[in-house]
Amino acid sequence: MTLPNHPRYAARLNAFKQKGGSVADMITAAGRVGGLDAADLNFPDHFERHTPAELGRLLADQGMALNGLAMRYYTEAGFKLGAFTHPDRAVRQAAIDLTKRGIDACAEMGGRLMTLWMGQDGYDYSFQIDYARAWDDTIAAMAGVADHNRSVDIAIEYKPDEPRAFALMPDMATTLLALRDINRANTGVTLDFAHVLYAGEMPAYAAALAARHSRILGVHLNDGYGKRDDGLMAGTVHPVQTVELFVALERAGYDGVIYFDTFPDLGGMDPVAEARANIRLTDRLRAIAQGLAQSEALAAAIARQDAAASSGLVAQALYG
Amino acid sequence: MTLPNHPRYAARLNAFKQKGGSVADMITAAGRVGGLDAADLNFPDHFERHTPAELGRLLADQGMALNGLAMRYYTEAGFKLGAFTHPDRAVRQAAIDLTKRGIDACAEMGGRLMTLWMGQDGYDYSFQIDYARAWDDTIAAMAGVADHNRSVDIAIEYKPDEPRAFALMPDMATTLLALRDINRANTGVTLDFAHVLYAGEMPAYAAALAARHSRILGVHLNDGYGKRDDGLMAGTVHPVQTVELFVALERAGYDGVIYFDTFPDLGGMDPVAEARANIRLTDRLRAIAQGLAQSEALAAAIARQDAAASSGLVAQALYG
Amino acid sequence: MTLPNHPRYAARLNAFKQKGGSVADMITAAGRVGGLDAADLNFPDHFERHTPAELGRLLADQGMALNGLAMRYYTEAGFKLGAFTHPDRAVRQAAIDLTKRGIDACAEMGGRLMTLWMGQDGYDYSFQIDYARAWDDTIAAMAGVADHNRSVDIAIEYKPDEPRAFALMPDMATTLLALRDINRANTGVTLDFAHVLYAGEMPAYAAALAARHSRILGVHLNDGYGKRDDGLMAGTVHPVQTVELFVALERAGYDGVIYFDTFPDLGGMDPVAEARANIRLTDRLRAIAQGLAQSEALAAAIARQDAAASSGLVAQALYG
Amino acid sequence: MTLPNHPRYAARLNAFKQKGGSVADMITAAGRVGGLDAADLNFPDHFERHTPAELGRLLADQGMALNGLAMRYYTEAGFKLGAFTHPDRAVRQAAIDLTKRGIDACAEMGGRLMTLWMGQDGYDYSFQIDYARAWDDTIAAMAGVADHNRSVDIAIEYKPDEPRAFALMPDMATTLLALRDINRANTGVTLDFAHVLYAGEMPAYAAALAARHSRILGVHLNDGYGKRDDGLMAGTVHPVQTVELFVALERAGYDGVIYFDTFPDLGGMDPVAEARANIRLTDRLRAIAQGLAQSEALAAAIARQDAAASSGLVAQALYG
Repeated sequence: MTLPNHPRYAARLNAFKQKGGSVADMITAAGRVGGLDAADLNFPDHFERHTPAELGRLLADQGMALNGLAMRYYTEAGFKLGAFTHPDRAVRQAAIDLTKRGIDACAEMGGRLMTLWMGQDGYDYSFQIDYARAWDDTIAAMAGVADHNRSVDIAIEYKPDEPRAFALMPDMATTLLALRDINRANTGVTLDFAHVLYAGEMPAYAAALAARHSRILGVHLNDGYGKRDDGLMAGTVHPVQTVELFVALERAGYDGVIYFDTFPDLGGMDPVAEARANIRLTDRLRAIAQGLAQSEALAAAIARQDAAASSGLVAQALYG
Repeated sequence: MTLPNHPRYAARLNAFKQKGGSVADMITAAGRVGGLDAADLNFPDHFERHTPAELGRLLADQGMALNGLAMRYYTEAGFKLGAFTHPDRAVRQAAIDLTKRGIDACAEMGGRLMTLWMGQDGYDYSFQIDYARAWDDTIAAMAGVADHNRSVDIAIEYKPDEPRAFALMPDMATTLLALRDINRANTGVTLDFAHVLYAGEMPAYAAALAARHSRILGVHLNDGYGKRDDGLMAGTVHPVQTVELFVALERAGYDGVIYFDTFPDLGGMDPVAEARANIRLTDRLRAIAQGLAQSEALAAAIARQDAAASSGLVAQALYG
Repeated sequence: MTLPNHPRYAARLNAFKQKGGSVADMITAAGRVGGLDAADLNFPDHFERHTPAELGRLLADQGMALNGLAMRYYTEAGFKLGAFTHPDRAVRQAAIDLTKRGIDACAEMGGRLMTLWMGQDGYDYSFQIDYARAWDDTIAAMAGVADHNRSVDIAIEYKPDEPRAFALMPDMATTLLALRDINRANTGVTLDFAHVLYAGEMPAYAAALAARHSRILGVHLNDGYGKRDDGLMAGTVHPVQTVELFVALERAGYDGVIYFDTFPDLGGMDPVAEARANIRLTDRLRAIAQGLAQSEALAAAIARQDAAASSGLVAQALYG
Repeated sequence: MTLPNHPRYAARLNAFKQKGGSVADMITAAGRVGGLDAADLNFPDHFERHTPAELGRLLADQGMALNGLAMRYYTEAGFKLGAFTHPDRAVRQAAIDLTKRGIDACAEMGGRLMTLWMGQDGYDYSFQIDYARAWDDTIAAMAGVADHNRSVDIAIEYKPDEPRAFALMPDMATTLLALRDINRANTGVTLDFAHVLYAGEMPAYAAALAARHSRILGVHLNDGYGKRDDGLMAGTVHPVQTVELFVALERAGYDGVIYFDTFPDLGGMDPVAEARANIRLTDRLRAIAQGLAQSEALAAAIARQDAAASSGLVAQALYG
C-alpha cells in the first residue's frame, strides 16, 4: 500500500441503483459519498445507453477515476448454461467475443483492468457436466481474451457458488491452478473477502498463495458470516482477518484500489451512509495494519507460532 | 446464579492436563493463571481418585470456588450408542443413576449447578434412530434428574454434532423446546460460544431466546470459525458478537461465571499463557460492552435498525 | 389437510415464468407437465392483473386445484427492513393488513392454506435489531393474522437466511417455539427440504419435531448441498433422507400436497422437463418409502439403533 | 498402482481396535470381515511392537496384502505445533527423518505407497503463522522425502481442518498447487471422500482435477454430511456422488485399492458388520458406475449439460 494513495477506494456502482435510475444517477450518488475516488463499470450493462467517452466524463465530473471493467454474462438468457463452459461452441464464442468488446471499451477509457467472474460457469448436479472439457474450454477462452490486448490485465474473481450450486473456479487454489495453465503475464486474481470466507479460506493465506503463484489484481472488501456472499460492511464481522489481510497485501506489494463490494440494498440501508461507514472503518483498520506490519514483537511471536502472544499484540493494537 | 459477581472466571480444567498428571495437578496449574476464581469438575472422571471433600480442599487451596459439575458419559464404552437415548432401557437407567450420583457429589461440595452435555445422544445415519422415542426418553430422563435434588440446577449444554454426526439437542431452540417439555423450575441452558456459532446462530439472539423461554445457567466462552467446536481463545475471531453477547447477558440479568472452554492443547499452546490471554481480552470486551449497554445513541440506532449508525458506534467503542 | 391424497403434486409457478409472460402463461405451462394437479399462488404478485375468480378458472382449465397462497413482502420497497419486525409500527401494520387481504383472497378461491415466509424479517449485523422486540412483534402479528379467519391455516415456512444474513425464524425448533407462543389452532409449519438441509437439520427429525409440537401444513420438496437454497430436483442429491422424510410424513399422518419448490431457471433448464423429472423420481422414492414403512425388519433394526442393518435394508430397497 | 484389480478393498485397521488389543488383534479382526484383501499400516504406531517382517506375516495370515503405510505425527507431543511446518528447524527435521524411516519400513515390506496427512501442519489463529514460510518448508520437506526412495510413491491426503482449525493443505487444488511446486514424479494425491465433501468439493470434479494435474494414488471411501470428517459407511448419504466418483476414477485409469476410512467406533457400531456393509454397498454402486460409464445416452446428455436427462438415466440405473 505505498501508492500516492490515490485512488484508494472504489465501490460497487449498482449499490447506488434506484428504481428507474440511470448509470449517471448511480455515479452521482457514489460521488456524494466523498472518499470514493474510483469506480468499476459493468460491461455491457453500464454501456447500454452511454459511450465509453460519456462514462469517462461522468466519472470525472464526480472526481472519480475508472478502476476497471467487470464482465456480466448472466443478463443474457443465452449464458444461463454457461459462458466459457457453455456446451454450445457458438455460445462460448459469443461469450469470448463479448469479453473482447468489453476489453476494447476498457482500453478506450484508459482502463487497464478487466475482472471476470464466471458466474454461470459451473454445475448444479452430478453427471451434468464434463469437468475436463469445461476446464479446457475455460483455459482456452481465458488465454484468448488475455491475448486480445496485452496492456489490459485480466483478473479472475472466484466465488464458491451462486447462481450455480458449484462454480468451476470456486476458490483461490483452483484459480491459481487455472492461471498456471493459462500462462499469460497479463492475468491474475481478484480476491473478494466474502467469497474467500465462504470458500473456507483464511484471507491472508489466500493472499499469500496468490502472491506466490500469480498476481493480486483486485481486492473486493466486505464482510460476512462464511456461508454465502453476504456483502456486509467491511470489517464489521471479521476485523482481525481484515487487518491480517491488509498486512498480507502490504507484504505482497499490492497498491491497487480497495473496492467495496457490498449489498446495502438487501438490508434496506442507505447506500451513501453505508459507503461512508465502509470508508471510516477501513481507514481505521488499515492504520492498525500499518502499525502491526512494523511490529518486531509481532514478527517474533509469529516466527515461533505463539498465538497467545501474537493475539495479545493484535488485541492491544485494536482495542487499546 | 446469584453470586455477587465474584467469582468471575472459570476454565476447563482438562486444558491444564499433562500426560500422567492428576486432577490435583490440573487444579494447581489453573491456580497459577491468576484470575481464575472458579472451576467445574467432570463427573465421574475427576472423582476417580478423590472424594468430593478432597476436591473442595484442592480448589480452596488455589483460591477457587466450585462453579459446578459436568457429566461425562463418553468414557464408558456402555454409552457409545447413547446415554438418555440408548436403545437399552438398562443403559438409559445407568446413565440416569450416574447423573444422580453426580448431582449428589455436586451437592456434597456445596455446588448448585450440574451441566449436561449429552454428547452420545444423537445419531449418524438416516433410519438409525426413532426420533420420537429418543425425544420422549430424553424428556423423561431430564425430568427425573431434575427432580432428584431441586436445589441443584440442571443446565443443558447443546452442541450441533461430535462425536455423533447429529445431536438430539443441536441448537438453542431445540433445547428450549425440550426444556418446555421437561417443565421443571431447576432447569435451564448453558450457552457455549463456539457451539452457538457452528449451530449457525447469532450469540446474542440465542441468549435473548433463552432468557425469554428459560434461564441461562452457564456461559462457556471461546471462539471459532463457525464450522466445528474450535475452542479458540475468547474474542479472537468474533469480538463484535462477543461484545453483543455480553450486552445480551447483562440485559438477561446473568451474573454467573464466564467459563473459558478452550482447547490450548490442540494447537500446542501453553495453557497458562492461553488462559491469561482469555482473561485479558475478555476483561477488555466486557468493559466495552458495559459502555455500549448504557449508550442511548446505540439504543436509538437499534430501535430504527440503522446498522450503519450502530456499527459505527460499536466500531468507535472497540477501535477508538 | 384432509384431501383424499389427491391432488398429490404442486409446483412453484414462477419456475415456469418466461420473460414478458403472464400468470396465465405460467399456469398453462404447468399444465403441460402432466401430473401437477395443484398450484400455489403468490399474493399479491399473481393477483395484480387477475381476480381470484379468474385465477381459479385458469387453474381449473389445466385440471389443477388451488393448494394455497403464499405471501410475498419483498417486492415492495417498504418491507426491505422487515415486515412483521419492521421498526416502524405503520409498516408492520401494512404487512399485517396485506396478509389479511391475502387470506381473504385465499378464502374467496376456496383455499384453506396461507404460507408465510418472512424473508425480510431478520438482521444482517450484530447490534442491528432488538431481538426481543422483533420476537414479540412477530408473535403478535402471527396471532392477529391467524385470528383473521379461523378456517384458513397459517403455515410458517422457515429458512436460515437470504435475503437477510440471519432470519428470525431460521429453523424448525425456533419456528415451533414461536408457534407455541402464537398458540392458535389454525397454525403450523411448512417444511422445505433444502431449507431443512442448510439449517443443518435431518429432515425426518425436523418432521418428527413438528408432528409432536405442532402440525405439518406443507412440504416443499427439492434438494441441495446443505449450504444454501439450491432448489435442485427432488431426490437427486439426498435420496435416503428424502425416503426417510416420506416415512416420517406417513407416520405423522401428513396427506397434503408435495410441492416442488425448485429453480430450473438458475441452471438454464427447461421447467417442464424438470418438473416431469421431479414427479418421476419422487413417485419412485415414495413407493420405496411405503415399502420401508411396513418393514418389520427395519423397525427392529431402528429399535436397536443398528445402522449397519438398517442401512443395508434401505440400500436393498433402493438399489436392489 | 498397476494391480490386477486385486486387491480391491482395504480398511482402516484402527477401526478394529479394542481396548488393550494389539495390532495383531486388529489384523485378525479385519480378516474376519471377508472381502478386505489389503490394509494400510500406520507408522510409527503399528510398528512399535512388531518388525516390518512380522507385520507382513500377520497380514499374509489373513490373506491380506500391504496397500501402503500412513505417517502419524500427532501422537508425539513434539509435533503439536506442526511437523513439516514446525517453527523449530530441529523438529521439522525430526519429522522428515521419521518419514524417511517410515518409507524404509514400507519398502522393506514390499510396499510402494506412503500416505502423508499433515494433520498438525496448519494454524488456528490469524497472525499465528508465516504462511509463505510454512509453504516453502512444506515443499522442501515433501521434495526431500520423495527423493529418499524413488520407488515409493508419496501421496498427500488433504483435509480441511482438525486437529488444527485450518490446514495448510485443505483441499484438492491447494494440494495440486503444492505438487507442482514439489515437482517429483513419485508424488500424487489421496482423495478422502468425507474430506472432499467438507472441503466443499464435488468428488468427481476433484478427481478430474487430480487426474489432469497430478496422479490419484489412493482413494479413501466413506461418507458424511459435508461439515466434518464424519467417517460414515460408504454410499449411505451421497450415493450419486459416489457413483460419479467411480466413473471419474475409471476415466482416470485408477486401479488402486478402495480403502474404507470409516469410524464405526464413534457411533458404537460393530466394526466387522460395518465393514461388510461398506463392501456390499460399494460393490453395488461400482457395478452401477460401470454400467453408466458405458452409457452413450448418458454421455450425450452430459455433453449438452442436460441435467433432467442425465439425472433420469442415473436414477433409473440406481433405483430401477
